[in-house]
Amino acid sequence: MIREGVITSVELVEACLARVREVEAQVQAWAFLDPEHALAQARAADEFRLSGQPIGPLHGVPVGLKDIIDTADMPTENGSVLHAGRTPSRDASVVSLLRGAGAVMMGKTVTTEFATRTPGKTRNPHNPAHTPGGSSSGSAAAVAAGMVPLALGSQTTGSTIRPASYCGVYGFKPTHGLIPRHGMFQLSRTLDHVGLFARTIEDLALLLGELAAHDERDPDSRPRARVSYGAIAAAEPPLPPMFAFVKTSLWDRVDRDAREAFGELVESLGDRIEEIELVASTDEVLEWQLAIGGAEIAINLRREWDKGRDKLSAALRSRIEQGREVRAVDYLRALGRIPELNAGLVELFEQRYDAILTPPAFGTAPKGLESTGDPALCALWTLCGMPALSVPLMQGANGLPLGVQLVGAPHRDGQLLRTARWLVAHLSTRSDRPPLKTRSTLAAARLARARPQA
Amino acid sequence: MIREGVITSVELVEACLARVREVEAQVQAWAFLDPEHALAQARAADEFRLSGQPIGPLHGVPVGLKDIIDTADMPTENGSVLHAGRTPSRDASVVSLLRGAGAVMMGKTVTTEFATRTPGKTRNPHNPAHTPGGSSSGSAAAVAAGMVPLALGSQTTGSTIRPASYCGVYGFKPTHGLIPRHGMFQLSRTLDHVGLFARTIEDLALLLGELAAHDERDPDSRPRARVSYGAIAAAEPPLPPMFAFVKTSLWDRVDRDAREAFGELVESLGDRIEEIELVASTDEVLEWQLAIGGAEIAINLRREWDKGRDKLSAALRSRIEQGREVRAVDYLRALGRIPELNAGLVELFEQRYDAILTPPAFGTAPKGLESTGDPALCALWTLCGMPALSVPLMQGANGLPLGVQLVGAPHRDGQLLRTARWLVAHLSTRSDRPPLKTRSTLAAARLARARPQA
Repeated sequence: MIREGVITSVELVEACLARVREVEAQVQAWAFLDPEHALAQARAADEFRLSGQPIGPLHGVPVGLKDIIDTADMPTENGSVLHAGRTPSRDASVVSLLRGAGAVMMGKTVTTEFATRTPGKTRNPHNPAHTPGGSSSGSAAAVAAGMVPLALGSQTTGSTIRPASYCGVYGFKPTHGLIPRHGMFQLSRTLDHVGLFARTIEDLALLLGELAAHDERDPDSRPRARVSYGAIAAAEPPLPPMFAFVKTSLWDRVDRDAREAFGELVESLGDRIEEIELVASTDEVLEWQLAIGGAEIAINLRREWDKGRDKLSAALRSRIEQGREVRAVDYLRALGRIPELNAGLVELFEQRYDAILTPPAFGTAPKGLESTGDPALCALWTLCGMPALSVPLMQGANGLPLGVQLVGAPHRDGQLLRTARWLVAHLSTRSDRPPLKTRSTLAAARLARARPQA
Repeated sequence: MIREGVITSVELVEACLARVREVEAQVQAWAFLDPEHALAQARAADEFRLSGQPIGPLHGVPVGLKDIIDTADMPTENGSVLHAGRTPSRDASVVSLLRGAGAVMMGKTVTTEFATRTPGKTRNPHNPAHTPGGSSSGSAAAVAAGMVPLALGSQTTGSTIRPASYCGVYGFKPTHGLIPRHGMFQLSRTLDHVGLFARTIEDLALLLGELAAHDERDPDSRPRARVSYGAIAAAEPPLPPMFAFVKTSLWDRVDRDAREAFGELVESLGDRIEEIELVASTDEVLEWQLAIGGAEIAINLRREWDKGRDKLSAALRSRIEQGREVRAVDYLRALGRIPELNAGLVELFEQRYDAILTPPAFGTAPKGLESTGDPALCALWTLCGMPALSVPLMQGANGLPLGVQLVGAPHRDGQLLRTARWLVAHLSTRSDRPPLKTRSTLAAARLARARPQA
């Protein structure tokens, strides 16, 4: 619509800012938001468009950035008083890519402390007494509350998928290394991923198309041929997709309510889904994840530990302490599991399944703001670096959203989006017996009212 | 000569076998050598050549392989009774590459225990009371004694450069990752390199040209454009090269005799050499090397440790024990030093120097067979993955050879060989005052007598 002149970037950003004024006092999604700075970028975008020069696919569209993503024109405080007032001199790779595509950097969204577990101020837009999840709390909540159509976060265990599920938006963690992480706070080279939040699959594909890039400053980034994620995601699957339902070894800890919802979802998919059991237990996976993440977090936070550990939360201090005690052989043994696990999972995709379907969390957003919820059900897919998506398809008995996690084969990110689109369409067109707890449209219509459209 | 029919592969291999019969009882360079199997390959090579089909650059040339390099047609015992009789089902990448170039796999050369420090049976060909160095003991000794013109080894600290210096042959450790290591016993992904032994720089360039290849089964191998190492090595340098003389912080531990020899060498190079001091002390480097190597050796030898640690040498057991105690944060911190060190060294090459000139060892081969000598002077260049070469230019007062270590910028392997060729030519053509201890030709003419020419 911006390209065609139906709306201007200034109008879109103003609509977003109006929504911010309306709900931010309650949601508290933003760590930094200067309306004038956002509008100045929007005005520049509109002027540039009128000059007749070619414009990028995100031209004039505002994007929220998790406050661990460096921006040269806004502070980046990493959710810690130790970095209060920190103003990086350069943009992170993803910010450069977004600016190149014409996007407006709306502001910085609240992160937990250094993207770990200690919560920031953000509340769940569907119910302020509940956590929005984390660590990408502000990005998930800002998109869910309609304050911005797109936002970036990160995921080291479950920091994108979990808040997306709790807040009722799409959350997408593409394949490890596909989006360069240079200029983002590094917790763990092995586990860190860039995360994307949006309200539609089309928007995720658009965003991924702009962010999938090679940057040699990220050691896990590789040069790759350009992929038309939008076209792949929009295409009809050649055959109806086949899903593998994975309960994981932690199924007993999933809320009864969520178990029922998944039961109905599986039933509604009929012969397109089969329950399978994985060889790797989630307990083992969590142990490996703890060894890798613990050691890498301890090394990446060593300056903060050395200089100001009393300014870290007790939870993070204790995590660093544990990480400092991890032995290198245990770390290396855990790293050695990743290719083994991956080989087993890739075989599943090659032989039979288009996506794994599995809970993103143990239920809807827990009550209270002192915890961001448990990321355990995301750990395996993060460890393996596989693309994972939370689709806002269901809701709990308490009316709060509940996502469906889909996991795809590495570097088949477009195909995973295509499979997700099929799933959403399949569930909304079935008239015989729509699953009781499946939401036919995104929940919280009251929040959707004022949402600007990307 | 084989290509032109001047000699046949059978004649060349028979000459080598004759030399083996002559000196092997004293030198003991071979872990496995089946004359019939070598001759069968040579006969096949000669038949193939007579068929008129195109032949590879190493057609019919015998090569010795360190016994940590898997061969499908010969045992590979990794220098340990734990692997006695081990017969791999596949060739290592380098063996496939050699076979593709037409080479004859002469046999397997003696390695220390798992390419670490506990010696095998090999003796220095120049004096059997002295160590040949290690861990590539047999490869260095076999080339030095004229039993084979070319041999492969490996280097994790100083396992190619040190025995090459002690045995008076060229030893070359190309840039980390340039030659794929798949199918070789892995001690340390970070530190392991393939090593090459030859009697001339031209032979090293020829060998490197065949072995520099991409193999995705080695995670540090990358696809790269083909480089004409032979042409680069043979070319005249555009300007006389400039050398940086690096004494390192361990200079005091270098034998007086070797210090004098290096002093003369530096003097003879006049204004083409400058002494520089490195920021990193060798003590620190050894500490980082110990953390990385220790932890990676402990993980790579975990099966042997679990199943048969009583069959490991006491020295290796103790090294594994130390490695098992390394903390992951110390391991990761040490890994983090590598790019920093590299950046500083690369700057030296970019700004002024063609090669670093530095001792490969503390002196000539130590007396006794219970130790393979100290690799400390090779540690920095191995840690940084830079190409390093030992040039057999000097000898000690005891008549034993003493190499000159040249180190080049990463991925400038051909240029390093070119610089080495200039150095050798410069020293042999200077008539005003040849350095007292510099050998104008390879020492041990008595051994050279029966050497077959590659």
